[in-house]
Amino acid sequence: MPDDPDESFVIDTLLAARPPDAAPVIRSGVAGIPRFAPGDDAAMVGPRTAVTVDTMVEGIHWDGRSTPEDIGWKIVAVNASDINAMGGTPTWAVLAIALPSPLDRPWVKAFSRGLGLALEAFGISLAGGDTTRSVSGRTLSLTLAGEVEKAVGRHRARPGQTIWVSGPLGGAAAGFLDKTPIPSALLALRRPHPPMGLGKMLAACGHVSAMMDLSDGLAKDLPRLCKASQVGASIDPTALPPHPAVLGRADALAMMTSFGEEYGLLFTADAKADKEIISICTAFNCRPSPIGVTDNNTATGARLKGTPWPRPLFSHFGDPS
Amino acid sequence: MPDDPDESFVIDTLLAARPPDAAPVIRSGVAGIPRFAPGDDAAMVGPRTAVTVDTMVEGIHWDGRSTPEDIGWKIVAVNASDINAMGGTPTWAVLAIALPSPLDRPWVKAFSRGLGLALEAFGISLAGGDTTRSVSGRTLSLTLAGEVEKAVGRHRARPGQTIWVSGPLGGAAAGFLDKTPIPSALLALRRPHPPMGLGKMLAACGHVSAMMDLSDGLAKDLPRLCKASQVGASIDPTALPPHPAVLGRADALAMMTSFGEEYGLLFTADAKADKEIISICTAFNCRPSPIGVTDNNTATGARLKGTPWPRPLFSHFGDPS
Repeated sequence: MPDDPDESFVIDTLLAARPPDAAPVIRSGVAGIPRFAPGDDAAMVGPRTAVTVDTMVEGIHWDGRSTPEDIGWKIVAVNASDINAMGGTPTWAVLAIALPSPLDRPWVKAFSRGLGLALEAFGISLAGGDTTRSVSGRTLSLTLAGEVEKAVGRHRARPGQTIWVSGPLGGAAAGFLDKTPIPSALLALRRPHPPMGLGKMLAACGHVSAMMDLSDGLAKDLPRLCKASQVGASIDPTALPPHPAVLGRADALAMMTSFGEEYGLLFTADAKADKEIISICTAFNCRPSPIGVTDNNTATGARLKGTPWPRPLFSHFGDPS
Repeated sequence: MPDDPDESFVIDTLLAARPPDAAPVIRSGVAGIPRFAPGDDAAMVGPRTAVTVDTMVEGIHWDGRSTPEDIGWKIVAVNASDINAMGGTPTWAVLAIALPSPLDRPWVKAFSRGLGLALEAFGISLAGGDTTRSVSGRTLSLTLAGEVEKAVGRHRARPGQTIWVSGPLGGAAAGFLDKTPIPSALLALRRPHPPMGLGKMLAACGHVSAMMDLSDGLAKDLPRLCKASQVGASIDPTALPPHPAVLGRADALAMMTSFGEEYGLLFTADAKADKEIISICTAFNCRPSPIGVTDNNTATGARLKGTPWPRPLFSHFGDPS
């Protein structure tokens, strides 16, 4: 449920044109594939297999401040985050890479190093790929599959549940927008490290009803969750956990909600499970924060208490989701 | 085994940087995943699951003579061909699409129509995707999975086997290079229709040792098969089946061998199986041609009898493979 009208148009047009349930594996239904709404972080293509794809375009998704190693790392990390957010564990990936001519071999070497580090860190096998020439600039698409025992999408949040984020917000925003970002903010932007395994444990505990990552920021992502689940949400701005880079700043709220590139988890859970949620997150070195509650107010959707959502600090059509 | 030094560099560098057998599904080995050489049309990611990805870049892989419908059709067809060439049946796909701003909505609509037609024709479910903005030009990557009961790669051809192509050659070359191509040549270029199902039947018959599609043309693709299988090959140029568009022309040999974009199958089979091969192909409305034999002459590799391979008529770094 993207809010960009162009992106909505592309997705709606593609969905309208595709034949219904064409593949035998889907059509047969024997496998009991869970049905998920378009807009989930990953699509279920088998009873236990999820798949996601994210593209990074030079000049849109990164600029000269990211090294080629950073880009190699990040194209894996953003996809791993999507699998994590479905409650899955990444397994294999294929990479499509378009590079301008003449080939910049040192770039390829450095990019491959970063990619290899991330594949190793997240336990992913690079199964194959496609290399091609581009007219200008680099474009990367990584398709990542994951094994999912119990999938959690965005559409089963219920009114009266606690809304959680798994960690601090605003780091990547500071890494991108600050003139001289602190090192941990730069790291959050350039080498994001999703809490891998946490998504699976939260899905398994049985109390988490909806989950997604915050790649587009709370101000965009929470309304999507609310719309998919047909619930409202009331967020306490003072409960949002600031990254050290934005702590105490006047622009902290916007940095925390309206930039994105966050790869922690946003999820809803039964209020009675608060202690269990904290215990699970702590096991993954995450400090979760309850930031609000879901309600029946679908008309107003996701709201910040006492203040409107800050305006987006940055936007590119078709943010990774 | 690409012959472009740039493409080789990218692939070798990526392969060198990836961690060995990182994913549990691969590492465990319990599933008995067949091992295939890099360079096969698709990668096996499970005991019965193959996956491939192909990218199409505007200005590299297509120009103004292809309609948006053609592009939508073709990005599916070229990937379906890879799955077919492994002996598989396509199942699900995810699409990554990067489009320049402002969005050309009629283009998106027409592209989606072509895509939908091909998805339906080949029985593929579009499971998900990613839309993003590009700086300039359109870039499309489709990742396609397939179900493979018996996979056939490129590395098991043996000396003394018959080399086959499943249909006429040179159509796409004429469609692209001729000033006023005949309609069937334009169709071969713009709406390729791989013989879906044929790859699976050839794999199942038990006589086919190596198989691939001819997306880069016989002059590039046959040497890859020979190198992977460590065999030589002797091709009779008079046995190559010409597409009607190149029949009797002086440049027919080059058009048939040195352009590509052919989505028929190239395969090797025991000589004793000739009749069975013809019978299987005929059932798929294909007229197969035995074009030569494999031999022990690995030093000289794949040769045309009595003439050198014509020079490539067109090349872009990183042709779909």
